[in-house]
Amino acid sequence: MPRSGEEARRRLQQAALELYRERGFDQTTTAEIAARAGVTERTFFRHFPDKREVLFDGEATLRADLTASVADAPDGLPPLEVLIRAFRKAGRIIEGNRPFAEPRLAVIAATPALRERDQAKAAAMGDALAAALRARGVTDRLAELAAHVGWITFHHAAGAWIEESSRSLDEHLDEAFADLRALSAETGG
Amino acid sequence: MPRSGEEARRRLQQAALELYRERGFDQTTTAEIAARAGVTERTFFRHFPDKREVLFDGEATLRADLTASVADAPDGLPPLEVLIRAFRKAGRIIEGNRPFAEPRLAVIAATPALRERDQAKAAAMGDALAAALRARGVTDRLAELAAHVGWITFHHAAGAWIEESSRSLDEHLDEAFADLRALSAETGG
Repeated sequence: MPRSGEEARRRLQQAALELYRERGFDQTTTAEIAARAGVTERTFFRHFPDKREVLFDGEATLRADLTASVADAPDGLPPLEVLIRAFRKAGRIIEGNRPFAEPRLAVIAATPALRERDQAKAAAMGDALAAALRARGVTDRLAELAAHVGWITFHHAAGAWIEESSRSLDEHLDEAFADLRALSAETGG
Repeated sequence: MPRSGEEARRRLQQAALELYRERGFDQTTTAEIAARAGVTERTFFRHFPDKREVLFDGEATLRADLTASVADAPDGLPPLEVLIRAFRKAGRIIEGNRPFAEPRLAVIAATPALRERDQAKAAAMGDALAAALRARGVTDRLAELAAHVGWITFHHAAGAWIEESSRSLDEHLDEAFADLRALSAETGG
């Protein structure tokens, strides 16, 4: 049995990810996840409300990190640049977590129920970033657009980094935001 | 009793929207929707798989319209400009449907279960637009980014139009894509 709550939590996440890859999400029960992690099913439910949430544990931490970075950014920085800096900082943590992040994204992409949860989290992340930008004095209109576009571009960069690991997440971030600039500059003609 | 299937479908949508506004989504049953529309519950389920889907009937049509516009756009047009033209064309239909569109968006915003479905539809729309751009020869990387960013910007413009009806959807679209250009141009410094 794992000794600490934190250790149990980590083992449950690892066990869930392994089982979802081996058998698929729908074919895996919480009892099986608990058994592989060497804990009881009751312990599973002490840590996670359901078998979807076990893969989204890091989202709350990431959201807190990102909104703190937005709040701490230098005054006068343009809204999307504020977000890019926050994404770069968060990227440090994500890169360190690649052995988990990579199979996790693959499982989410292959599982409709997990994709739906992922999309809901993305919308919530956009809303949280918009609120953080508004708190810096960015207008409602620009804060909302910058936050959702920024998050989607970051998500796109993270996906590209998972697919092509020979380059760093920072390089993929730079490329994605350069693409966004080029795509936008071509409009309005 | 409504005479045609199309008429029953329209009445079910109107009845569902009214009831969701009056009592809330969770407090409304499919039997109540059917009763208000003057049809049987069996008729409800002939048209819609569940009480969420009744508000998303137009999405498949919108998706087909948008992807057809993307396919028909002149050669050589930049990817995001292709999408803006498609959104303008679809806007004609959306503007005509405002009496339904306005309360519909308000109900979705207020109902977590409907927001989740809306987010899933948005992701599917982004994927469909990306596929349509790829079919025009746009690279995978740019097609995916342009499609998701374009869709989110359109969604943002539609929300602004619902809130401020004194201006046309086209004006809101122009403003949103001008904002996107300005936000993006400020990055990369």
